[in-house]
Parts: sequence; C-alpha cells; structure tokens
Amino acid sequence: MSASVFPSRTQTAEIELGTTLQPKFGPDGLIPCITTDHLTNEVLMFAFMNAEALAHTIRTKKATYWSRSRNKLWVKGEESGHAQLVKDLLVDCDQDVVLLKVENVGGAACHNGYKSCFYRKLTPGADVDQAASLTLEFAARRVFDPATVYKKK
Amino acid sequence: MSASVFPSRTQTAEIELGTTLQPKFGPDGLIPCITTDHLTNEVLMFAFMNAEALAHTIRTKKATYWSRSRNKLWVKGEESGHAQLVKDLLVDCDQDVVLLKVENVGGAACHNGYKSCFYRKLTPGADVDQAASLTLEFAARRVFDPATVYKKK
Repeated sequence: MSASVFPSRTQTAEIELGTTLQPKFGPDGLIPCITTDHLTNEVLMFAFMNAEALAHTIRTKKATYWSRSRNKLWVKGEESGHAQLVKDLLVDCDQDVVLLKVENVGGAACHNGYKSCFYRKLTPGADVDQAASLTLEFAARRVFDPATVYKKK
Repeated sequence: MSASVFPSRTQTAEIELGTTLQPKFGPDGLIPCITTDHLTNEVLMFAFMNAEALAHTIRTKKATYWSRSRNKLWVKGEESGHAQLVKDLLVDCDQDVVLLKVENVGGAACHNGYKSCFYRKLTPGADVDQAASLTLEFAARRVFDPATVYKKK
C-alpha cells in the first residue's frame, strides 16, 4: 500500500476548513500521531505513522504506527496484548498531525508499565538557570510490571 | 541561549525511569510538544520547541514554541493575546516529547478560531479503499472569528 491511498493536498482553505481528509506526510513519509484515552482525553503516547500505518489504522480500527527504531509497521499491542481500539480519528488544522481517541486494552500504553508515557513532570521550582534543579517527579503509578508482559528474548 | 542549558543524555534506564530532565532534540534541534487543557486534558495543539523555546517556557511559564514556518521563537499569544499559562510540563518515557498542561487565555488555541486545532474528525464509515469516503466532519464550534483577532497586514 502506498501514500496514494490518500488524496493529494489542495489549497490552504480546503485543507484547514474543508471536509476532505488530505494528510500531510513529511519528507520522511511520516506524520506525527497523538494518542489519547477516549474517555478522559489523557494523552497516552506519541508516535509516527506512515501512509500504510494510517490506512491500516482506518481499516482495522486498531492503532497502527511506524516504528522508526525497528523500521517496520507496528500494530500496537501485538506483543503486549495492549491493543488500542480507535474510537475517533482527528486531524489538526493543517492536517499534518493525527489525533487518535482510543480504548486502551489492558489499561497501559507505555512499555514501562504506565497508563501514559507521560508519567513524569518537571519539579515545581525548577530553575532553567540552575541545571541541577531541572528534575522530574513521578506523576503516575505503574499499571503492570514490564518484565511479566514482555518476554525476554 | 543554547541547548547546553539542558543536561546531556545518559543511559536508557536513567532517561526512562530516572528523575533528571534530559530532553532529546532531533537532528533539526527540535522536540515535539503536545499542549493540552490543564482542566480537561483536551489536546489543544501540537508544535515544536528548540532548546531556547523550552528554556523560555520553563522560565516564563508561558508556552513558547519554535515556528518552523517563520523560523523564529514563537511566544504563543503574542499576536492574538491568547497566551498559554503552563501549569505542568511533562516528558514522555524516552524524553523526546514534551507535554504541556496549560490554561489557554481567551479559550482558543487555534488560529482558525477553535479551542483546539483538532476540530475535525474522520467521518464514521470512512473506507480506506474508497478515497471519496475519506471525509471529515466538524466536531467543534468556533470560539472567535479569526478576522477580528488577527489584523490584516
């Protein structure tokens, strides 16, 4: 499957305020994707899609990304069992970002065992002029133990 | 200000499960940033930061991005008045994505007058094998009229 599944990009007015899906893939063939919990809006993860991944997501309603580290299609949950069932697929104003609202089977999106990959936040009082103060604090608890979900190879 | 404000990247275990902020900027010097409403978690927008923008955000607690189209620092709201006051700054597991939780002054993050840039969703029943079915429907109403906020140059 190639990028030709999706329409060519037209004019700004149609891209931004029209009703034709015309996603913009970057020079690397990828489009950023933000994935959120469809009930709470919480951001679960961020990844990239190529045209094949986007088409596969629309066809199967299972969130599918392009793994840049493994250089292959990545159907979320294929190893962990924690699939993401797509309830809604949105695009931003200039259609160069995708937003998925999903039901995250198993409750954890992050390979480290957290519901969301964003489980740490900057410590209050962090001072950008004092590097030692730029610390993180944990803002979530683990949902699962990664060692029991991902088998050692 | 340079990227040297932030610590160098260390080992995976420390990056993913440690408490030192060590953001990863890409080859282009940029890190993706997802911005959400601090009360509802709704995703408002997606943009990029360079090290200067991230440092400026931490220092001023006003969301600051790097505009790739204008090739300059972009303090959100400097033209529209719709600044974003940062309540929390999070990073993802491998610290190559930033997530801001903000109070969006004026209620609209999108230059098209919507609260969120993600105001359209894929029509239910869209069939990736039938290009004509890949349409969008509006999922939000405008908060302001862009013509009255952005002065014609």
